[in-house]
Amino acid sequence: MMKSSRIDGEMPHHDGSELYVSNAAPRIGDTVHLRVRIPHSYQFEQGFVRVYEDAEPRTYALKREKSNKTEDWYKVSLKIHNIHTVYRFVFIGGGKYEWLNASGLYDHDVHSNNDFQIVAVPANPDWIHSSVFYQIFPDRFARSGKIDITPDWAYPRDWNELPRGRSKYTGQELYGGDLIGVEEKLGYIEDLGVNGIYFTPMFPSRSNHRYDATSFDHIDPILGGDKAFLSLIKKAKSKKIRILGDLTSNHCGKGHKWLATAKKDRKSKERSYFYWDKSIKWGYVGWFGLESLPKFNFASKNLRKVMYSGKNSIVRRWISPVNGMAGWRIDVGNMTGVQGADNFHDEVMQGIRSAMAETNPNTWLVAENGDFKASDLNGLGWQGAMNYQGFMRPLWNWMNRNPEITGGFQGLPFSMPKINGKQLVASMQQFNASIPWRSLTASMLLLDS
Amino acid sequence: MMKSSRIDGEMPHHDGSELYVSNAAPRIGDTVHLRVRIPHSYQFEQGFVRVYEDAEPRTYALKREKSNKTEDWYKVSLKIHNIHTVYRFVFIGGGKYEWLNASGLYDHDVHSNNDFQIVAVPANPDWIHSSVFYQIFPDRFARSGKIDITPDWAYPRDWNELPRGRSKYTGQELYGGDLIGVEEKLGYIEDLGVNGIYFTPMFPSRSNHRYDATSFDHIDPILGGDKAFLSLIKKAKSKKIRILGDLTSNHCGKGHKWLATAKKDRKSKERSYFYWDKSIKWGYVGWFGLESLPKFNFASKNLRKVMYSGKNSIVRRWISPVNGMAGWRIDVGNMTGVQGADNFHDEVMQGIRSAMAETNPNTWLVAENGDFKASDLNGLGWQGAMNYQGFMRPLWNWMNRNPEITGGFQGLPFSMPKINGKQLVASMQQFNASIPWRSLTASMLLLDS
Repeated sequence: MMKSSRIDGEMPHHDGSELYVSNAAPRIGDTVHLRVRIPHSYQFEQGFVRVYEDAEPRTYALKREKSNKTEDWYKVSLKIHNIHTVYRFVFIGGGKYEWLNASGLYDHDVHSNNDFQIVAVPANPDWIHSSVFYQIFPDRFARSGKIDITPDWAYPRDWNELPRGRSKYTGQELYGGDLIGVEEKLGYIEDLGVNGIYFTPMFPSRSNHRYDATSFDHIDPILGGDKAFLSLIKKAKSKKIRILGDLTSNHCGKGHKWLATAKKDRKSKERSYFYWDKSIKWGYVGWFGLESLPKFNFASKNLRKVMYSGKNSIVRRWISPVNGMAGWRIDVGNMTGVQGADNFHDEVMQGIRSAMAETNPNTWLVAENGDFKASDLNGLGWQGAMNYQGFMRPLWNWMNRNPEITGGFQGLPFSMPKINGKQLVASMQQFNASIPWRSLTASMLLLDS
Repeated sequence: MMKSSRIDGEMPHHDGSELYVSNAAPRIGDTVHLRVRIPHSYQFEQGFVRVYEDAEPRTYALKREKSNKTEDWYKVSLKIHNIHTVYRFVFIGGGKYEWLNASGLYDHDVHSNNDFQIVAVPANPDWIHSSVFYQIFPDRFARSGKIDITPDWAYPRDWNELPRGRSKYTGQELYGGDLIGVEEKLGYIEDLGVNGIYFTPMFPSRSNHRYDATSFDHIDPILGGDKAFLSLIKKAKSKKIRILGDLTSNHCGKGHKWLATAKKDRKSKERSYFYWDKSIKWGYVGWFGLESLPKFNFASKNLRKVMYSGKNSIVRRWISPVNGMAGWRIDVGNMTGVQGADNFHDEVMQGIRSAMAETNPNTWLVAENGDFKASDLNGLGWQGAMNYQGFMRPLWNWMNRNPEITGGFQGLPFSMPKINGKQLVASMQQFNASIPWRSLTASMLLLDS
């Protein structure tokens, strides 16, 4: 693509923020005013917005609204016709024929993949935009010393020992951090200026990371169980600190009772929750081929019910007023519901979102979208992502001055590249321009996780 | 985006053609060999393909397969895991960090919207790739003189009179061309080297263009009716000329009996076929706000049945061996099923495709996709599009040396731009890189329509 090489200050600008869009969460039928800032140095004769209405392209002329020493502000009003409104601008005359979309200014025709997007669904909660979340891996943050349980899978470690590094112990070294310990340290967390905690999984499992849940019904007893959790929620609430949970909607652990029931009773409803395959040694499909992580089969209506759609589903229960979680971070979100010829991904993702909106709209649904699937962030699925691709990775690459950082960076089998400022901007734009502004601003800006 | 400015001959190349992809229509479980042609002047140390498997990114190393004076050919094999396989290549080392996707070579991270795509569904019929279609507007191609019907809506014109230009007569001037006339001229069409005819609609209507069907059950009597159609099909078949129909899946005409029944009987199943709105003078939603074109409401299961899914549906009936059409061109394909908060588009589009594949897989489903929606061409919906955006429009713009061609070009309210060769290539790549190769090669390359 041939993008204008002019610097930003010489180009028209529009984005999804309140300076440029009067209402980023309109209802169908509402009128939305769009504004474009155009420096005097950018000469053109006519400007238009091009938008779909019921999938029909329409154009409306921009009109100058106000002017100052350096720039003009143009305005155009749109009536919202559909859930998704996608639009871009065109400037013509004086030898110009240029399209402005979310990824920049182009001197040739462009398609709508990078158009600006407005989504006619309720706005994301305001607190998402003003929160600083602190990530806690419960086994390693603080130990109260009040819990004395050593599970059969664990290699217990003393609090001040170092982990042994990548080895057979990696997932099984248990330091014994717990939620009582976290509650004791809430003052410290508050002092950091943090107003949210994102916990990696707290459900019982057979590992220290707990991404292999053996139940979604209770908090792990070795973390203090439901009692410690509810006490933490209460104390955190008094300090206006929100608690975000972590859910593996893609798989559970091989120790989950669902798997045991499914294996024992072929007629059980749990049998439908998994993919059975006799050619695999352990009889079922595991995520990434792992026996420890049986992959969920969302062809099962019963599984959908128990996971999110049912009245007392796992998704709903923990964000209800009784339990008080502020939302869910979804593990390996882009893989959920995808297996071989099956692709239930969008249905499941949107089903989780709907269940949350019904139960408690004042919540946040943010997914690990590790490899960046733009359609997952179109406003109907995950509200935001852990923005590795549009933030963390470009920043790391740009700051990288260490030739020793090699291998495995974000799953790529080679050294982290070194990039310059232009490449930094280009890669951030590449990803962030393909999603609505609302999804960008509901995404995590993280340096690592 | 920052694209490499090297010329093509200095860059690695891959596309979806048989030189580079061993099987473009594999089944899940098959192995596909990918090849990349790399000129000696392009220096790198390692190359990988990056692909999703069950939505998990994986990388595999490229290996050199053969070499000649000017270039190396690299190869990598993939096992197909899902219906959609999206992949791109990365070249590293010697100071390089470059991604090759369907839109070119980039020196920064890119997302998967422009990845190469393989779709694990049966291949499109071979004849699509080797056919030259001739478009016929039945009222204007040839008149047999054997039909003497003047409909009440028509302003009859003598065959040698000129049309009156844009006026109240535009859609109603009737010259009286018919299918008997077409059959008489088949020898002429054959001599042109043509092996297909794409007919604009042949169903009865209240206009000369017939995009306002009053029935989908029979061929318009003023064209000679079903008898003339079947005779034409038979004669054309003997000359190996295929006949493509034109279907308005988005709307019918206000003279359709479905609308009459729906108006008369609120309990009729036809009532569910339309959008009723008391705030509109004539009581229903029309396409583009027109009374003459009542918009279909695909929330109606009965409408879906009669249009495509039912055993004797309109879509199926005309491509069955009895009627012998070679496929459908779908009018305003991108709008079908989209209205306000409703979006049944993908379901309807894929439903039409499935019905055709079941009834007669040796057919072509090609849509007017006027404004280019990439997801419509992902391999599960329309097999191809009328490629206005990725072919016709860039070519017109590039050849345009006439400042007088102004207004209304492809619905844009300003003159056709003039572009140079680089802009031509950039706009063609922009559109064509966002769809699988199979959809590009099943699209019409047209200079006008």
